[in-house]
Amino acid sequence: MLRAISNQTTMLTRSLRCQARAISTAKLPTTPSPPFPDEYPHALMRTASPGPRSIALSKELATMQHTAAVHFFVDYKASRGNYIVDVDGNRYLDVFCQIASLPIGYNHPALAAAMTDPDNLAMLTQRPCLGNLPPLEWHGLLQSTLGTIQPRGCSDYVTLMCGSCANENAFKAAFIWYMTKLRGRMTDSSSFLATVVLDGYDAGGRPPSEHDMQSSMANMSPGSPALSILSFQGGFHGRLLGCLSATHSKPIHKVDIPAFDWPVAPFPRRRYPLDAHQRANDDDEARCLSIVEDILTAHNKATTESTQIAGIIVEPIQAEGGDNYASPAFFRALRQLASDYGAAFIVDEVQTGGGSTGKFWAHDHWDLVDPPDLVTFSKKLQTGGYFAKPEFRPAEGYRIFNTWMGDPLKMIQLQAFLNTMRQDKLLATVEISGRVLLNGLQRLTEAYPGQLSNARGIGTYAAVDFATTAARDAMITKLRQRGLECGGCGDLALRFRPALIYQPKHAAECLEILDDACASSK
Amino acid sequence: MLRAISNQTTMLTRSLRCQARAISTAKLPTTPSPPFPDEYPHALMRTASPGPRSIALSKELATMQHTAAVHFFVDYKASRGNYIVDVDGNRYLDVFCQIASLPIGYNHPALAAAMTDPDNLAMLTQRPCLGNLPPLEWHGLLQSTLGTIQPRGCSDYVTLMCGSCANENAFKAAFIWYMTKLRGRMTDSSSFLATVVLDGYDAGGRPPSEHDMQSSMANMSPGSPALSILSFQGGFHGRLLGCLSATHSKPIHKVDIPAFDWPVAPFPRRRYPLDAHQRANDDDEARCLSIVEDILTAHNKATTESTQIAGIIVEPIQAEGGDNYASPAFFRALRQLASDYGAAFIVDEVQTGGGSTGKFWAHDHWDLVDPPDLVTFSKKLQTGGYFAKPEFRPAEGYRIFNTWMGDPLKMIQLQAFLNTMRQDKLLATVEISGRVLLNGLQRLTEAYPGQLSNARGIGTYAAVDFATTAARDAMITKLRQRGLECGGCGDLALRFRPALIYQPKHAAECLEILDDACASSK
Repeated sequence: MLRAISNQTTMLTRSLRCQARAISTAKLPTTPSPPFPDEYPHALMRTASPGPRSIALSKELATMQHTAAVHFFVDYKASRGNYIVDVDGNRYLDVFCQIASLPIGYNHPALAAAMTDPDNLAMLTQRPCLGNLPPLEWHGLLQSTLGTIQPRGCSDYVTLMCGSCANENAFKAAFIWYMTKLRGRMTDSSSFLATVVLDGYDAGGRPPSEHDMQSSMANMSPGSPALSILSFQGGFHGRLLGCLSATHSKPIHKVDIPAFDWPVAPFPRRRYPLDAHQRANDDDEARCLSIVEDILTAHNKATTESTQIAGIIVEPIQAEGGDNYASPAFFRALRQLASDYGAAFIVDEVQTGGGSTGKFWAHDHWDLVDPPDLVTFSKKLQTGGYFAKPEFRPAEGYRIFNTWMGDPLKMIQLQAFLNTMRQDKLLATVEISGRVLLNGLQRLTEAYPGQLSNARGIGTYAAVDFATTAARDAMITKLRQRGLECGGCGDLALRFRPALIYQPKHAAECLEILDDACASSK
Repeated sequence: MLRAISNQTTMLTRSLRCQARAISTAKLPTTPSPPFPDEYPHALMRTASPGPRSIALSKELATMQHTAAVHFFVDYKASRGNYIVDVDGNRYLDVFCQIASLPIGYNHPALAAAMTDPDNLAMLTQRPCLGNLPPLEWHGLLQSTLGTIQPRGCSDYVTLMCGSCANENAFKAAFIWYMTKLRGRMTDSSSFLATVVLDGYDAGGRPPSEHDMQSSMANMSPGSPALSILSFQGGFHGRLLGCLSATHSKPIHKVDIPAFDWPVAPFPRRRYPLDAHQRANDDDEARCLSIVEDILTAHNKATTESTQIAGIIVEPIQAEGGDNYASPAFFRALRQLASDYGAAFIVDEVQTGGGSTGKFWAHDHWDLVDPPDLVTFSKKLQTGGYFAKPEFRPAEGYRIFNTWMGDPLKMIQLQAFLNTMRQDKLLATVEISGRVLLNGLQRLTEAYPGQLSNARGIGTYAAVDFATTAARDAMITKLRQRGLECGGCGDLALRFRPALIYQPKHAAECLEILDDACASSK
């Protein structure tokens, strides 16, 4: 009781302190989605964050694991909807959502129903090797999940473990495709599919030679070719040794780890507000594209032996690198360059995929004529994997393979997520809530010009910059003390990655907490 | 009914044709483990394998996925204990067990109970980011699972996605440890642990310099150092780009994929029977160790700049490479060489771990004085990950990291597996059933000397060789037609990887089917 009163006092104080009045709850727009059943009314802090129980658990855990990245320990049973509850009873509005991987909030009834459906128990009790021994239900499960969100033209589905695993296997598919092309005689995709039979099929490309095979066993060319993947400064594609060579977001992720000597191009750095800097931003995109083309020319048109570029990987919005955007025109030009130089165009939708930009795939905003060759995913989709055009399926079995090749259980969760998304019209809600969030962030940057800048976003996928890394980091701590679970990205950004069940009232609460924290920092 | 009679006829025919009488069911030893509840009495084939429904499903699936590696489609609800049931109603004795990843058979009541326990529902309904937001239960879950199987000295536990992910992160831990050593001032492990605090801690080693950090962002030295991992011919450590550079089992896994130019040493190739070839086998192990030392000298004692070897990775039994064994003395010498040359000793227990050798870890058979530095696991444990000595924990957070860092759900499954293993005394049963299997294989090699050779194994982890790859592959098909689901490895081997619930009667059935197939091939 005392605690509840104390919290009401806190909220009153916060309201009085807020200056920007970013949003009035009376004016909030309605959405087509139902409210989350039995959701908590608002954030509620009982202790400092992390609280004493979190600190005690962290000390215990530190005897067996690294704990430097732990925010707090979580009571997942008590968490609900947009609110995560920690072990000290603190309830936070969660706009970080498990590093953007929580699709429809905590303890959603649709997911609970799927996980307690006796029909799904066999997939919980044993994990099949999907490549060798797929379940009876596998084809139907793929159809009702990935089949309903297939990017245009990408009719091959490969399920894997996580985002890094997805990207690295997409690289492998690009390398195999590229070498098969170099060896010639690749047929078109229609005849390619027509030859499919039960025990393997012939893609038409010449297979590797015996010399290729044997040299690969000693990690030597020509069997282990010096191919590369072109990536961008500020890009993040995971932390395994191949995809880490394409990651350039923070040095602490890369330093001391051997890397492939793959080329890196600059990614546009937009200036805000966009309408005041259109010319400069356009020029910067042109500059980046020109450098990409120079790199492709140097590698793929060289007459001397060089590291050919088999693929270009790019995020629709650079996430870990700081929520960096480029225009649809930039991505269309990039896609064209990939085609012109014979490189696969790989779109990494691990963080952007799943609906938080208002479309299921962020690259759906680009109006591409020729779709991506490979689209990788993970996080909100629960399973990692990639979509690919059919010509990226290797002719031989076991070349893109591992023990499990994903997990049917994660597909059942994906199915529950997608069904809920459609039934509850969550993408429409993302657009409406996103406008509330972005308008509010814009007003806060005007109210706190010394603290906040560059409000940007699409759907609820939004960010705002702070003046320094230290100020941003201090703000994350302040927001957590006030009941907002959030995260940074890049050097300066605070990123918003709410679940798709985030309603205008949650955007309003989030803005009020940010307003209050900024007011206390003046 | 007709089908049942037809099957009885088949079994009678099989018994009449069998020549070796590898085993008499009357003489089977007893075990301390209870029978699997409601298990099927034996294999039962109703159609050819794959049957018509599997073939139809495979044609459908081939429009969206590679199907070259599919054995058949599975009715996982109907599968039970040691028997896997396909969609055509064929019931196979399964000694392949999802590429050695099924710990206690199909639909084990202990796993079903864990998955339907309401107390575990929250871990099924949302997947936490364990590095940032661990559940209340996490420390206890680690203690009751990995804590009970911890290899001596390896008190740090890192959970990951799969075996490849485990190996590749173990490499990263070895690289970071090696570079920290090179930079000096690493303190001992006791003071290391003493400094653990909530938000990061100091391991005592000098951190990377600003120049290290910046050069790593361009994939260049010194930040991206030319370190390597030494691996063995015939070894398999996964298929991601880093661990694929340490994999040398089959060219089709490696060809066309860029590789790190890491060194490779020969692994002993034993001649059988062991007692007739002890001298030659000892000499071969000495030869391999001498080459390992030459490679270590050339890399780690070179005065000119060279690729330093940060770690040696080895499987206790080379699995995918063909079930190749070496002696405990070989591994003890290898461990010593790693210490002498300052390289981490990484034992890959992805396939050998989990009890099928009669001990939980295969390296427990070696009597090591100094334990491994890192032990990687996956498959039967359901979660990937590695154990490490505390000095392999990086000082800074986020260096060994990904979104999910494993999955608590898999830990709950591991807990059910380990509890069952102990309660039902499954390791003792593995030893007893393993003797039945190995003695029978030995007798079959004597009965079919032109077909079978080199029966070998430890516990139920066993293999036998065929004269040619074609003969081995043909035999796998024949065995499947007779109701034995099995797999090959290397060029010549048929491998046995039953679950821990495999009893002497299952070994007898397995031997009888093999006997019959060999008899029909004479």
